[in-house]
Amino acid sequence: MPAVRSRIDSFPHILPLTTRWMDNDVYGHVNNVQYYSYFDTAVNHYLIEKGWLDIQNGGVVGLVVETRCTYHASVAFPDELEVGLRVERLGNSSVRYGIAIFRKGETEAAAEGYFIHVYVDRKSNTPVSLPADLRAILEPLLVKGEQA
Amino acid sequence: MPAVRSRIDSFPHILPLTTRWMDNDVYGHVNNVQYYSYFDTAVNHYLIEKGWLDIQNGGVVGLVVETRCTYHASVAFPDELEVGLRVERLGNSSVRYGIAIFRKGETEAAAEGYFIHVYVDRKSNTPVSLPADLRAILEPLLVKGEQA
Amino acid sequence: MPAVRSRIDSFPHILPLTTRWMDNDVYGHVNNVQYYSYFDTAVNHYLIEKGWLDIQNGGVVGLVVETRCTYHASVAFPDELEVGLRVERLGNSSVRYGIAIFRKGETEAAAEGYFIHVYVDRKSNTPVSLPADLRAILEPLLVKGEQA
Amino acid sequence: MPAVRSRIDSFPHILPLTTRWMDNDVYGHVNNVQYYSYFDTAVNHYLIEKGWLDIQNGGVVGLVVETRCTYHASVAFPDELEVGLRVERLGNSSVRYGIAIFRKGETEAAAEGYFIHVYVDRKSNTPVSLPADLRAILEPLLVKGEQA
Repeated sequence: MPAVRSRIDSFPHILPLTTRWMDNDVYGHVNNVQYYSYFDTAVNHYLIEKGWLDIQNGGVVGLVVETRCTYHASVAFPDELEVGLRVERLGNSSVRYGIAIFRKGETEAAAEGYFIHVYVDRKSNTPVSLPADLRAILEPLLVKGEQA
Repeated sequence: MPAVRSRIDSFPHILPLTTRWMDNDVYGHVNNVQYYSYFDTAVNHYLIEKGWLDIQNGGVVGLVVETRCTYHASVAFPDELEVGLRVERLGNSSVRYGIAIFRKGETEAAAEGYFIHVYVDRKSNTPVSLPADLRAILEPLLVKGEQA
Repeated sequence: MPAVRSRIDSFPHILPLTTRWMDNDVYGHVNNVQYYSYFDTAVNHYLIEKGWLDIQNGGVVGLVVETRCTYHASVAFPDELEVGLRVERLGNSSVRYGIAIFRKGETEAAAEGYFIHVYVDRKSNTPVSLPADLRAILEPLLVKGEQA
Repeated sequence: MPAVRSRIDSFPHILPLTTRWMDNDVYGHVNNVQYYSYFDTAVNHYLIEKGWLDIQNGGVVGLVVETRCTYHASVAFPDELEVGLRVERLGNSSVRYGIAIFRKGETEAAAEGYFIHVYVDRKSNTPVSLPADLRAILEPLLVKGEQA
């Protein structure tokens, strides 16, 4: 994981997100766990907004197999956030999403990490090749030189 | 609690709020619990935004003594929400906040309820009369004819 | 809602529950929202444990139409809790569950409230008469003199 | 991260933990985010239980600088869990905790990862050498051959 803080212009997609009172823990900052709910939200929001993910009827779904986060600086309710999303690796059946959390208006990430989905057939739970329509919406997010 | 759905124009303050993937439960709609995190967020956001609530150093804090919610219609991630806030009762040391959740652009509440704070001295934990600066920011939210 | 704290022996069913670090908010006590996750957990745990609720395949599900909680005293991570569950009203298609939160070993509730389910056909979303097998597992929880 | 699933006997400390209805996401399994709340709970529970962490008054606190989780198999409410805790690296001011989630009674981890704390002076927010009393309670959890 990079020791340097990623910049917002290295993320092709940005999702605005509001914090909540409950996100703050006893130390008055957003708890480490909540960042992963921002990661999760950014990925699924993109997949739904682009019309690919159909929670009720989709035949292919993403299983989360690994996640990771490095925390550079704290954020706290009532901060407004911007969540940067990119694709760092497009495999045959898996995708590594790179995600970073920015306090609104800041250019350096407060936290960043990744989220790896393996796409599986919903009934058999076995990996499938990435469907063409999914690949089509992910390619614009792919960071150059990172394809597996 | 009203069986009729409150309208957004009966709330003098509106807070925009984004939903999260995790808010949806197994039935694909925002879980009943999460609405209270929206309530909590609306009240504390207002108190912080107006410069009254200082989480780290404030000498007076609000203790939650009762909350209630009626659910009229479901909302679901990735809906964007608007949270309506009003004051339904301004007592000597307590405040009943009326809160309703609207799907963005809709005029009838998807859910509504209240949240009662008793304001206490942080050290002794005993109720205090509402400080004048708190009362000043709450009066504009007071619904006519509802003062205790 | 009772101003007096309910006693644990007025609840025919008790569920042990562990608290989490994240349950505590900035004031160092369990946040008001989390109590509703305990309510939710107690009801659904009972319905699953008794073999009635089948999340994936059940044809009848409970919709939450109203919840309420009165907070008497704080609890905090790492407290262990006991959640008391009873049925306060068994209607034709709705059930009012009474729930109270006890710090383990204590006999007076730290918080208490209710949770009202309307049971609906999962496909049409319209209320149904309580199925006989559901009624059979709820009757032992019914508090005398409370049937609607 | 190991592709093989860690066994429960490689964790010197085990914390029992109950799942909640809300932990399940729309796919009917515990959401990837919640595992980190189990991680967080296991570390802080140990530090409080051993008498080291005093949330209100402690002069040294742990800042989370990195977390990671690999998901091997799903768990779901109403599963009961056992959270394995060990120390994988004891640095001068940082500690890498290894954590794994087991469905109760199972010997292979459903998920596992780590959680890195840097211990800082609460006022200045600067790293400190691990206090002797903290080191004393962590050494029994240290996995042989892993000390930095």
